[in-house]
Amino acid sequence: MSSEAVADIGLVGLAVMGQNLILNIADHKYDIVAYNRTTSRVDDFLANEAKDYKNVHGAHSIAELAKKLKRPRRVILLVKAGAPVDYLIDELIEHFEPGDIIIDGGNSNFNDTNRRYKALKEKGFLFVGMGVSGGEEGARYGPSLMPGGDERAWPHIKDILQDVAAKSDGEACCDWIGPAGSGHFVKMVHNGIEYGDMQLICEAYDMMHKYLKLDNQQMSEVFAEWNKGVLDSFLIEITRDVLAYKTKKGEYAVDKVLDEAGQKGTGKWTAITALDIGMPLTLVSEAVLARCLSSIKDERTRASKVLDGPAFTEYKGDKKAFIKKLEQALYASKIISYAQGFQLIRAAGKEYGWDFNNAAIGLMWRGGCIIRSVFLGDITAAYRADPNLENLLFYPFFKDAIHKAQGDWREVVAFAVSNGIPTPCFTTALSFYDGYRSARLPANLLQAQRDYFGAHTFRVLPSEANEDFPEGKDIHINWTGHGGNISASTYSA
Amino acid sequence: MSSEAVADIGLVGLAVMGQNLILNIADHKYDIVAYNRTTSRVDDFLANEAKDYKNVHGAHSIAELAKKLKRPRRVILLVKAGAPVDYLIDELIEHFEPGDIIIDGGNSNFNDTNRRYKALKEKGFLFVGMGVSGGEEGARYGPSLMPGGDERAWPHIKDILQDVAAKSDGEACCDWIGPAGSGHFVKMVHNGIEYGDMQLICEAYDMMHKYLKLDNQQMSEVFAEWNKGVLDSFLIEITRDVLAYKTKKGEYAVDKVLDEAGQKGTGKWTAITALDIGMPLTLVSEAVLARCLSSIKDERTRASKVLDGPAFTEYKGDKKAFIKKLEQALYASKIISYAQGFQLIRAAGKEYGWDFNNAAIGLMWRGGCIIRSVFLGDITAAYRADPNLENLLFYPFFKDAIHKAQGDWREVVAFAVSNGIPTPCFTTALSFYDGYRSARLPANLLQAQRDYFGAHTFRVLPSEANEDFPEGKDIHINWTGHGGNISASTYSA
Repeated sequence: MSSEAVADIGLVGLAVMGQNLILNIADHKYDIVAYNRTTSRVDDFLANEAKDYKNVHGAHSIAELAKKLKRPRRVILLVKAGAPVDYLIDELIEHFEPGDIIIDGGNSNFNDTNRRYKALKEKGFLFVGMGVSGGEEGARYGPSLMPGGDERAWPHIKDILQDVAAKSDGEACCDWIGPAGSGHFVKMVHNGIEYGDMQLICEAYDMMHKYLKLDNQQMSEVFAEWNKGVLDSFLIEITRDVLAYKTKKGEYAVDKVLDEAGQKGTGKWTAITALDIGMPLTLVSEAVLARCLSSIKDERTRASKVLDGPAFTEYKGDKKAFIKKLEQALYASKIISYAQGFQLIRAAGKEYGWDFNNAAIGLMWRGGCIIRSVFLGDITAAYRADPNLENLLFYPFFKDAIHKAQGDWREVVAFAVSNGIPTPCFTTALSFYDGYRSARLPANLLQAQRDYFGAHTFRVLPSEANEDFPEGKDIHINWTGHGGNISASTYSA
Repeated sequence: MSSEAVADIGLVGLAVMGQNLILNIADHKYDIVAYNRTTSRVDDFLANEAKDYKNVHGAHSIAELAKKLKRPRRVILLVKAGAPVDYLIDELIEHFEPGDIIIDGGNSNFNDTNRRYKALKEKGFLFVGMGVSGGEEGARYGPSLMPGGDERAWPHIKDILQDVAAKSDGEACCDWIGPAGSGHFVKMVHNGIEYGDMQLICEAYDMMHKYLKLDNQQMSEVFAEWNKGVLDSFLIEITRDVLAYKTKKGEYAVDKVLDEAGQKGTGKWTAITALDIGMPLTLVSEAVLARCLSSIKDERTRASKVLDGPAFTEYKGDKKAFIKKLEQALYASKIISYAQGFQLIRAAGKEYGWDFNNAAIGLMWRGGCIIRSVFLGDITAAYRADPNLENLLFYPFFKDAIHKAQGDWREVVAFAVSNGIPTPCFTTALSFYDGYRSARLPANLLQAQRDYFGAHTFRVLPSEANEDFPEGKDIHINWTGHGGNISASTYSA
């Protein structure tokens, strides 16, 4: 095997994503070296999936990988997030030189990427944390790529990444996001939104299945129809296909799948980050918690035998009309989810000092990735028209869409609530909408309660300020007439 | 000032909670030493609040505090959670001896308490992380105390703590919780539930205020009435008083309070811990996120000018009857919140190897603390009758209560949803109830989608297993007919 520097880039990790991304890069005429810790996978890959590619090379050690890479070296890691990434980086820098570029394309936590970026920068290496989305198909034929980190790496990797990335109206779904872990942060939010989109689809499916009593074929046709409208997206499209898919024996595959979903990944991180930053990302949070509830199936099964609810009477009205309302409910809830997602990105930009380009993020999500949709084209257009848009809901297109949808949305949620069909994401989206458009929320009572029992103090409504209730000051009322008058500055009950 | 060892216990941190707890301990005839970093506070306290107490002593340095304590030394810290606790511990152990007892009574994160417990154990000190609830009134006249950590400390502190703690039917609302940070963990869950209870009350208040158009006096009377029924609790009682409270000028104080609530504390930790453990603590999470939404009032105010909703038409029906339904909706939602809270405690017990006594926890919360209620007496009874109860909803008392309430609950939520009044916690509680009692959730579709786009594999429903779909195996279908057949064991899109 040749030992000279022949390859433009290397890739470590030959699971399905890695294999497909290599073939994608090779299709674009780049020479690439494949390496995997279990080296038999390298040989299998070269002998099978990659056998027709002269520009796909193999390496059986990190040293050989380093030897085969042109300078500055460029390598993409697609390995399990966490410790394996750190081990691999330590091994790589033993054989790499300052100025070489290490791209972590796995689902790393952006806090880890912040740390690695800093540590490698001090050693002179250019570290990039890159979000990769699109699943195995995307990796093979054009993923969405979200690179961030050491910007000095960008000129050396821009062409390769934008060549292999998905295209939307001729524009690559790959652009430079920002410093440190910003690329993995944006990918994390993408995945959180993906959790939300999938849960919303599941709730619509559940309504049609349990309430409208449609069969899989009929539901597949509904999703086919929806895929021609405002919901046109990859997830709606595959839902159409999943519902229609039959096994060799002619059974619907979807009916055989166990209804237990895991949630140990990036969706959870998104919900936790929102809590840390203090942004009301309610829909993604409910989607993550809905997976938690699904995962305790045995307990649910026991509960189903003791806990009653309304009898599932089949919907008596016009099912076609109801399905149109359901489409609007799903659309409105989706608008809320993305409005919340970009609200989190905006707050994170302030928190971490990252100057996000929301239009570019919209474009990166427009194609290639799991949440790709026509809808994301509208979001990109909104942020191109007004880069400083405070919230998507303020943009006429989305404001009008949600105003048009809300009647149907409220009706569908009221039906679900009355008929005992759980729709946590439809409902939390509506609660958020009604809370967000409330100049006054009942938190005044909550603040008064906290001052009553914990002397936590409160602020006065500016319109209600006077000499006893000065604006902008921490005020404490001795509600009970006894107890201390000191505010509980150091204690929070 | 005397320098001999006169005091049974010491307390560091003279904010309102610390001062009140000292007076409470002194009322029970114990000699106690007060210390505060800003020593002028010590003198002020001795000269004012504590002037009639000969058994309250002062210290102007940690050294003096240590000198004045009988062996083994016992000290309670009530200082700001975080670094201040670590600084103080370092300072204390310079003047303390192995075998001495340090009790952190602040709102420390249980992960920090785990760490401190381990570090101090190695040095020979007995560390206790104690949850303290009840606000300033509780601290003064009987708080709920939740101590956990080094069990060797318990015999030395049991009498003092149980003497000063609140009593419920003669039983002290203070018992040993378990090892390491288990005491602060239980306090954290208490605070999360407190967030939920307060938000539920706010949603009921908002419905009565915006939809029934009741004035503060009328609403105060409703809460007074509710306080005689199943909702009988401290928070309902103070809501009655807060709503009726008038300023010197005769204005209702609650109407002057700014509707912005903070959430940087233990409520957030509870939601994050639930996500980490993978338990669907939806109600507390929504309550925390509702505070986040309240905190962006300026943005809400701008949104209120562009985003429409249903006109708030005054409720036309029988208001008294609606208020009874509202009471049932609040009660049912509260049952769900506590069922979720104990579900989290149960899961945490398994996760951390802590053997929780749920009946004892119920009793500790029954009196003294902010969430104290008649309801917690019912919970204690349930766990005494069946210590291994899988979920509160399985217990006949709560099952019957929620069955009786659910009709009204669904009606109230449907009203809120139709009329544009945000009730995120009422609705998420109902979604949880309907999901929890579903043997089958739509997560089968979600798992099929994940296998479609990411080759994540799925499991088969046992009832649907056959030779092509073996039970308990990770199954992958090549849904598209092309793309790889390798499962994405190392990648999660």
